[in-house]
Amino acid sequence: MQQTLPAYAPLSNRQIVNIEEMADQILAEVGVILQDDPTSLEAMASIGAHIEGDKVFTKGNNLRELISKAPAQFTWHGQNPENDLVIGAGTPVYAPTYGPPVVETFDGQRRQGTLADYETLVKICDRSKLLGTTGYLLTIAHDVPEDTRHMAMARAHLKHSKKPMMGTVISEQALRDVAQEVGTTPTECQLMHMINTTPPLVIQANPLQCLRTAAELGQGNMIESYMMMGATSPVSVIGSLAQGLAEIMVGAALTQIYRAGAPVVAGVFATPFSMQFMGPIFGNPESEIVLMASVQLMRRLGIPCRGDGMITSSKLNDAQAGYEGAGTLTASQISQADLIFHSTGWSEFGRCYNFDKSVADEARILSNL
Amino acid sequence: MQQTLPAYAPLSNRQIVNIEEMADQILAEVGVILQDDPTSLEAMASIGAHIEGDKVFTKGNNLRELISKAPAQFTWHGQNPENDLVIGAGTPVYAPTYGPPVVETFDGQRRQGTLADYETLVKICDRSKLLGTTGYLLTIAHDVPEDTRHMAMARAHLKHSKKPMMGTVISEQALRDVAQEVGTTPTECQLMHMINTTPPLVIQANPLQCLRTAAELGQGNMIESYMMMGATSPVSVIGSLAQGLAEIMVGAALTQIYRAGAPVVAGVFATPFSMQFMGPIFGNPESEIVLMASVQLMRRLGIPCRGDGMITSSKLNDAQAGYEGAGTLTASQISQADLIFHSTGWSEFGRCYNFDKSVADEARILSNL
Repeated sequence: MQQTLPAYAPLSNRQIVNIEEMADQILAEVGVILQDDPTSLEAMASIGAHIEGDKVFTKGNNLRELISKAPAQFTWHGQNPENDLVIGAGTPVYAPTYGPPVVETFDGQRRQGTLADYETLVKICDRSKLLGTTGYLLTIAHDVPEDTRHMAMARAHLKHSKKPMMGTVISEQALRDVAQEVGTTPTECQLMHMINTTPPLVIQANPLQCLRTAAELGQGNMIESYMMMGATSPVSVIGSLAQGLAEIMVGAALTQIYRAGAPVVAGVFATPFSMQFMGPIFGNPESEIVLMASVQLMRRLGIPCRGDGMITSSKLNDAQAGYEGAGTLTASQISQADLIFHSTGWSEFGRCYNFDKSVADEARILSNL
Repeated sequence: MQQTLPAYAPLSNRQIVNIEEMADQILAEVGVILQDDPTSLEAMASIGAHIEGDKVFTKGNNLRELISKAPAQFTWHGQNPENDLVIGAGTPVYAPTYGPPVVETFDGQRRQGTLADYETLVKICDRSKLLGTTGYLLTIAHDVPEDTRHMAMARAHLKHSKKPMMGTVISEQALRDVAQEVGTTPTECQLMHMINTTPPLVIQANPLQCLRTAAELGQGNMIESYMMMGATSPVSVIGSLAQGLAEIMVGAALTQIYRAGAPVVAGVFATPFSMQFMGPIFGNPESEIVLMASVQLMRRLGIPCRGDGMITSSKLNDAQAGYEGAGTLTASQISQADLIFHSTGWSEFGRCYNFDKSVADEARILSNL
């Protein structure tokens, strides 16, 4: 669908400009906190930002000028050139679910993830006809000590797949170690890194350090404002977009200060915060509108945009999982997002990688391409 | 969503014009068969069509001129004025599933429908906060003799609801009898009638007679080309749209010959024909593209367009039902179809009205409006 049909843009040009003006006002008057990382503050000061404590006040257009140095399209290299991916080329790249601590295996066992589970998931992603990348943090290898866990997981990717993979963001040093293991060079993007802001309007020290390290190594960053609407962002779609855009602009601009031309993908991932359940819920029309509008905003910045796949609040692969997943995936496809995270296997609010569901989701998506 | 966001139009204006030109060529050179109904042939001859046997060759623009007399917007009256619906006003009207012979009840029993089941379904539709109409043929009241069945079903609507309902198309006489029971007048549309063409390029005697009778009584027709792509229409989206448009144009024009200004809703309902299963399958992206393009084509004719709701091939309300239903419903909503059939309760390829699913589907749709 997404290759021949026009993209759906939910917001008018005037609405998009309004959101940009709101983001500019936030950047100039409210400021964004860059927490416990003096280097980031110095970097922002070097482009004329005004700093108060750890708060940065800046002009949107200064950030846009920097972000314009980032590529609208770039190659994400695999261990094998035939697995290379082009991000931003008009055809979406599908990535697996990122982050679930728990797995539900093919034999129906549900448990905290182990390294063996991790290796199985890498193999599933490698054999997938849908997924272009094996991602990273497919689950948490709880049976490996924390100080070596990131390397054990990285080695699982290298051992079982030649597809492009992501790097770790557990710490700056860990990121460097994985990059060294992979053998990255500054001229080829082999690793993308999941950099989350901490809404509202904060970026914490560790993501700041990781995005800097990744950019300095010539590697990619995926900058995401993952917000809970009504809790860590305004409850409204438009307000959330303005806040998310401000956060993303600071993060994306920083990457270009450290290395002009470093690959960046970005986007707002907004979930309504349920006052009943006191947590975020997934697969709603509000999130879908934010997602589609986020693609419009990232196009204006000239960088590729992230989207989401078959995400759901359901604990089972039931009708709810089906319609919530299909709704979000459709939003990503119809708006023509470039890199679709959490494509397959997502279950239980993202807390569980469900092996059966990953197969079912993949069959669903492939049959509809 | 559909009230504030722009409509999605999958096809460019050039593509739409191409399809119209193809439809015109079909109408002029291939012809449409009006089966065993001389009055329809005479009606078409009266507007200059060339008749060979029961085949009609005609000019697309002659049909468009007639169809332009049909209202772009009309009121569908209930027994109670506060239940009146406006079709074509920009807000979609949701209708229940039409036609399933089988029901699955709240206590999990699955059986051929009875009059008692029929009455339960009318009550479900009446109490619904989503459905604007109680529809018709919600199931088949198998325990009522065929010659009085249509009246028993019509009386169930009148007894349990004041919402607008549909009429029967079992025969011309039955249609008249139901209209009399309802107490229709030629100046108010109280009954819509489901008029199916018989692709490829045929309209059979009974639907021809029913559409004529409904139009003469000042009642509405919903003209649908329900086609199986690869079996009763070309396998391609574009070819199916051209064929369906030709069929619909003949049907819609006939209504205006009989009564200029008679309400018509129309649209193409195209399902891929599975060569494995030897039947139509529901809830596919091909169907969704046809549906959305069909809205574009009906807009050009100036008449309201039909869409579909939570339809699926699944026999359970499972993940497949969820994503197939959500995909089709989203296509109807995002393209801004005016009258959405089969909104809730559809199961088993449309063979079963599932009571539980009707409640779940309604909750899903309402939560997302």
